[in-house]
Amino acid sequence: MPPKRLSSSEYAAGLLSGNRVQLSRAITLVESTLASDQALAQEVLAAVLPHTGQALRIGITGVPGVGKSTFIEALGLYVVQTLGKKLAVLAVDPSSPRGGGSILGDKTRMPQLAAHANAFIRPSPSSGSLGGVARATREALLLCEAAGHEVIFVETVGVGQSETTVHGLVDFFLLLMLAGAGDELQGLKRGIMEMADALLITKADQGNEAAARRARGEYQNALNLFPHAPSGWYPPVLLTSAVTGAGVPETWEMLQKYVAQTQANGFFQRRRQQQQLQWLHHTIAQELEARFYAKEAVRAELPMLQQAVAEGRQTPFAAAQQLLNL
Amino acid sequence: MPPKRLSSSEYAAGLLSGNRVQLSRAITLVESTLASDQALAQEVLAAVLPHTGQALRIGITGVPGVGKSTFIEALGLYVVQTLGKKLAVLAVDPSSPRGGGSILGDKTRMPQLAAHANAFIRPSPSSGSLGGVARATREALLLCEAAGHEVIFVETVGVGQSETTVHGLVDFFLLLMLAGAGDELQGLKRGIMEMADALLITKADQGNEAAARRARGEYQNALNLFPHAPSGWYPPVLLTSAVTGAGVPETWEMLQKYVAQTQANGFFQRRRQQQQLQWLHHTIAQELEARFYAKEAVRAELPMLQQAVAEGRQTPFAAAQQLLNL
Repeated sequence: MPPKRLSSSEYAAGLLSGNRVQLSRAITLVESTLASDQALAQEVLAAVLPHTGQALRIGITGVPGVGKSTFIEALGLYVVQTLGKKLAVLAVDPSSPRGGGSILGDKTRMPQLAAHANAFIRPSPSSGSLGGVARATREALLLCEAAGHEVIFVETVGVGQSETTVHGLVDFFLLLMLAGAGDELQGLKRGIMEMADALLITKADQGNEAAARRARGEYQNALNLFPHAPSGWYPPVLLTSAVTGAGVPETWEMLQKYVAQTQANGFFQRRRQQQQLQWLHHTIAQELEARFYAKEAVRAELPMLQQAVAEGRQTPFAAAQQLLNL
Repeated sequence: MPPKRLSSSEYAAGLLSGNRVQLSRAITLVESTLASDQALAQEVLAAVLPHTGQALRIGITGVPGVGKSTFIEALGLYVVQTLGKKLAVLAVDPSSPRGGGSILGDKTRMPQLAAHANAFIRPSPSSGSLGGVARATREALLLCEAAGHEVIFVETVGVGQSETTVHGLVDFFLLLMLAGAGDELQGLKRGIMEMADALLITKADQGNEAAARRARGEYQNALNLFPHAPSGWYPPVLLTSAVTGAGVPETWEMLQKYVAQTQANGFFQRRRQQQQLQWLHHTIAQELEARFYAKEAVRAELPMLQQAVAEGRQTPFAAAQQLLNL
């Protein structure tokens, strides 16, 4: 028997009391594509919105094999155990099938963190368009804030389009990298380094320490050549080791320093406001395009016109005009 | 008395014969916002399209003061004099008022090049939306190709949004920088270094050579840390001096090497095809958004909703839905 359908005020009350089961169900609601669920989800969000915004939102990315789960578990345990704060871990991974290969579907990836009462781990929404997954993740983040989570990690794999999306969701963007710059970077998306607020070199363990320190120096020099960020923040490069636990408190201290600096100069709030407005306009743009490309006439003509444009037989502007006039 | 209005076939014939006056007039046509001019422009483009695509399209960017005009004139003279090729120089600079501060409005910036019979220099279209300027520049580029220009420079100022646009117009993207990495980079847009196919350090003159060589080493190391480009090309860092003329033939050789390598591995054509399709979809997206935001009801509601979203009183998705349902 499916659980009884709650009203939006029941959801809201459950969330605000920190009820994990209600939080899970509310997230399922925002992930649903059913119109009735969507309407209810928007009511729930409207009700809890005044109780959101207080968490520190941290994006964490890196290619597979970089040790992301291990680091997230270590930093997460530091947050929930040492600091005694409530943590939520979300993921944006549109490509993964639900339950299957999802980067967070398997809680055994972070067994200690998953077992902790103060940690709430939620896998990526089911495969779907990046736009849909991004919206659901953003709304899930707000629900987690309403449920009293003070720190939120948003995890993604640093190889595709989703990092830009996550960058638009978070206050701080952390890029995990391996020492020995070179081949392992081939999988990393271009442009991602310039989005990072900090680099973290993983596996700076015994035997690998010299290479890690060398890599830190190289990356630090490279980052110093980048144009300055409008935050006035200089992205640092830190080392971390899952073996020794090094780098975890340092990462947290760095995050606190970033918050203090950007709250003082106003960038922190400005970034959030800009993100809100960007989501507004991106949502509108996505919906307009979705409606346009769903039209029967457009779907009929598009393949031929794309072919003509790709082969240089028609200008992109003439082809666009032709489609828009359909 | 204004010049007699030509037919599209007269324009096309004039262009294909390499007539500079017709080329200028055809570009004015694609820059026009009059519906009748636009229709005629599209006819002209359709007629000459089979005669386009053969030029090497090079984007050149850098902050003001980097020595862009000087370098463009030096490389341009090498192209027209030493190589005997026909060159067109276009600009994308939506912010500049026509004739006034346009980065190419004043041909005295490149007096020798402007006087050469094989060089065609055209200032940026008049101030307008970036989308409009970008479209006009892309179409001007095609007209220049039809008129037999074998090399095309597209110039922009590396501080705003237009670099991404220019990157979508050209085969190769060249970033000019000053030696002494640091403060002067503050004006450069973030993300631009990862778009560059090569860096060129200007003013590597007497007294400044050591600093320029050191900068080259630093930038080369930094670029090596970047994720690899899908072209298989490793962006090099070159030095150039307006005083000695050093670096000009080297830049041309590098361009030839890039063309040979990417034509052999298929990336050259693939990049152009992707650009064409991106222009198609960007044009559609821009037009859909322009139509949407021009609606009376949207214009009436938008400011209030933006305010509510920026202040966190409403979610971006709810606000977007409200606007879309108007």
